[in-house]
Amino acid sequence: MNPSGSDCSVYVALLHHSMRDKNGAVVTTAVTNLDIHDIARSSRTFGVKGYFLVNPLEEQQEVVKRIMGHWQGSGGRDYNPDRSEAFERVRIVSWFKDAVSAIEAQEGQKPEVLMTSARRAANMKWKSWREAREEFSGSGRPKLLVFGTGWGMTDEFLREADAVLDPIVPQRESGYNHLSVRSAVAIALDRLLGGR
Amino acid sequence: MNPSGSDCSVYVALLHHSMRDKNGAVVTTAVTNLDIHDIARSSRTFGVKGYFLVNPLEEQQEVVKRIMGHWQGSGGRDYNPDRSEAFERVRIVSWFKDAVSAIEAQEGQKPEVLMTSARRAANMKWKSWREAREEFSGSGRPKLLVFGTGWGMTDEFLREADAVLDPIVPQRESGYNHLSVRSAVAIALDRLLGGR
Repeated sequence: MNPSGSDCSVYVALLHHSMRDKNGAVVTTAVTNLDIHDIARSSRTFGVKGYFLVNPLEEQQEVVKRIMGHWQGSGGRDYNPDRSEAFERVRIVSWFKDAVSAIEAQEGQKPEVLMTSARRAANMKWKSWREAREEFSGSGRPKLLVFGTGWGMTDEFLREADAVLDPIVPQRESGYNHLSVRSAVAIALDRLLGGR
Repeated sequence: MNPSGSDCSVYVALLHHSMRDKNGAVVTTAVTNLDIHDIARSSRTFGVKGYFLVNPLEEQQEVVKRIMGHWQGSGGRDYNPDRSEAFERVRIVSWFKDAVSAIEAQEGQKPEVLMTSARRAANMKWKSWREAREEFSGSGRPKLLVFGTGWGMTDEFLREADAVLDPIVPQRESGYNHLSVRSAVAIALDRLLGGR
């Protein structure tokens, strides 16, 4: 059995580039403090092997390193060792391909790339959560779950995925579909790796 | 059918008192900005009828009102109408019993109180997510889902629940169980009300 929560290795990437903004323009978004904390904690809880923050801006990378340095330094470690432990699997890289390469180097094979989207855009290779959950419990290729920030990934980028997971929706239509990415990651990991 | 995401009305309460701190002392915790935002958005997405922030401190209540006022004012509404819409169902009350009374006044009957805990403490009335999900899809009593902050609720308080939902755990033991409350609420709502 793999040290991660499933028989295959699972990784998470949070993209800050190239995201859409609310007007559809392509932008680099800012790293949010709680995107580091919450997603690191969810990743650690569900046995994810690595959580990649993807942001090409040097000053943004410095922000991440400063926050992680605080919690991994002796002060943060003493105050909250659990937080420090969650941060051990966080990595910051400039580009999405760097995350893919790092996983390939560690695992000896390219990961299967599963992206997520709140919108059911046209011409995507959609995959159901049920099907993905079955694959996650097998001993197949490593998996990379990809989440966007801002107003989401571009359709062009989503089409580069091996598959896009169905949008997360309630059982009964609520007319509202604006989860935070922190909430979406938590739900995704629970759907794929949670105890039933 | 009820306007909420299930046949019975569902409410969420986030407690800031009486919480345990990391040394086990009973304290009032501070409201976190993203606890308002993320849980309001998850609640709205899954059709929750009301989200109660419970905090007896007047200055903490003022913080909540200021944040909500910003997003519900014309500037915030123009910038992000979805955020403003999510906040329409947020209420701030001083005590847990005030949330129960408000629901009783609105629904004409007391809600069934389902608390949550990351620890499997002794002498609780535990309920499985599967059983709870079945009850949520029926047309029974209104439900109130209760979440703690800090290091969680006291055992005395948990024993006042009609039931405590099983701790959220991964399918395979990861040796780590420290989800943020924002993540725990998202997962709980998805387990009870999410599309399958």
